[in-house]
Amino acid sequence: MILTVTLNPALDVTYTVDALVPHATHRVTAVRERAGGKGLNVAAVLHALGEPVLATGLLGGMTGAAVAARTAVPHSFTAIGGETRRTVTVVDRADATGLWEPGPAVTPDEWGAFQEHYAALVKDAEVVVLSGSLPRGLPADAYATLVGLARRYTCRSVLDSSGDALRIGAAAGPDVVKPNAAELNDIQTPLRAVVETHGPRGLIARTPEGSWRATPPEVVTGNPTGAGDACAAALARGLRDGTPWPELLADAVALAGAAVAAPVAGEIDINHYRATRERVHVQPHG
Amino acid sequence: MILTVTLNPALDVTYTVDALVPHATHRVTAVRERAGGKGLNVAAVLHALGEPVLATGLLGGMTGAAVAARTAVPHSFTAIGGETRRTVTVVDRADATGLWEPGPAVTPDEWGAFQEHYAALVKDAEVVVLSGSLPRGLPADAYATLVGLARRYTCRSVLDSSGDALRIGAAAGPDVVKPNAAELNDIQTPLRAVVETHGPRGLIARTPEGSWRATPPEVVTGNPTGAGDACAAALARGLRDGTPWPELLADAVALAGAAVAAPVAGEIDINHYRATRERVHVQPHG
Repeated sequence: MILTVTLNPALDVTYTVDALVPHATHRVTAVRERAGGKGLNVAAVLHALGEPVLATGLLGGMTGAAVAARTAVPHSFTAIGGETRRTVTVVDRADATGLWEPGPAVTPDEWGAFQEHYAALVKDAEVVVLSGSLPRGLPADAYATLVGLARRYTCRSVLDSSGDALRIGAAAGPDVVKPNAAELNDIQTPLRAVVETHGPRGLIARTPEGSWRATPPEVVTGNPTGAGDACAAALARGLRDGTPWPELLADAVALAGAAVAAPVAGEIDINHYRATRERVHVQPHG
Repeated sequence: MILTVTLNPALDVTYTVDALVPHATHRVTAVRERAGGKGLNVAAVLHALGEPVLATGLLGGMTGAAVAARTAVPHSFTAIGGETRRTVTVVDRADATGLWEPGPAVTPDEWGAFQEHYAALVKDAEVVVLSGSLPRGLPADAYATLVGLARRYTCRSVLDSSGDALRIGAAAGPDVVKPNAAELNDIQTPLRAVVETHGPRGLIARTPEGSWRATPPEVVTGNPTGAGDACAAALARGLRDGTPWPELLADAVALAGAAVAAPVAGEIDINHYRATRERVHVQPHG
């Protein structure tokens, strides 16, 4: 089983309006809601591929209940007293406007309760994927702690975060770190395997077995949100199965493209995936 | 007991941002949520005055559950399958921007279930207040039906709505109709008592016992949302107690001003109310 961790999930709300005009009142013509957060996207992609997966993390309040109700993947979250955040995206004819709630503050007791819950789940997992930002109240070394607990139970780990959470988490030695190229400069520690994502140009992997560049056969147009999460899903599955790196990286690039081709983050265009996987170009690098 | 009916309630969400810029992403610095809807405001004002009150209406989905959780007044709503609407107000340094969700469509079965529930509640009520717009799916004569049911159980009724819902509802003969002056022109039927609200200039009442104009002693600055609902609360209480019209109208003007003086709709500044009540100017009119 692959475990995904989302410590700062969100209810993603999308409003359609004709044109957003500051200081006017708007009738919203369509409302969509989905369970958001990078770890939940990773879980959704694995679930769509038929892989056994369990989503965990922190959820609180009425919005937390709404996220749980909208999560189609098996899940087991730890309850917190604060209210899970919403992201409201207002889409008009021209573009999208984002309104990001601050999200809850997590207490030390809640963080302790999550660690216990996580330890029980990670025992049964082959790989854990740690994704996204940390909510207020968590220590900066939260991912380092979770990487250490995974190792104690011989569970492999993939870390996909940013800023201090990534930097300090990476120092604890996860099996794979998946930053974007800009984030990579901040990491001082020597790493086991790094998979650097370069958006539509594919990715570069530096591993103990060698370095490769993987390039998609063509540029995919669509919604790039969630492409990195599809890539993380492929990395977790490959790590679990001991897939050789070149094959694993081709899979990651094809899945990321399939996520871009699907309109909603966390979904993949399975036909696009199947049609692309054999055509990803992988070559030794550096 | 006074019963209030809110057929189209809302979860009122207020976001504070620095400056709303279309097609940018904003960090929301403060999130407030309250149970919204005119009938719920009426109930909140009566509750604050210590009057026995029960709020009913239609609630559905996770947002309906959030409205119920945020309703401090005794309440007994009928559940519907649709999702209760949210109103999102984005407040920046300059002004407020409104985003109004369309709200649920109510099925004929749900409307039937509500009528049964309402009939059971209205039996024990002395006055019912019917407030606000009708959700999609309800017949235009929905308020006419509820006025008729109230009369069958010798419960007095106050109707405060607009458009067709007001016009057709008024034809069923509620005891008091509370439109604003603009809406009044649309009503063809001779009415028992009409209380016309004129914003900061007070109100004019035309009743079988006479006509009066009631004027506040001074202009109140603040948030006018909810002033009409405070006025409806005063009318319901006066109708229940058989308060003479001049006294009742002074009370209505003072309570409306106390609602303007309080920052949030559905709340009243009780000190403002007490300091104003004896100073409202009531004189025969027309």
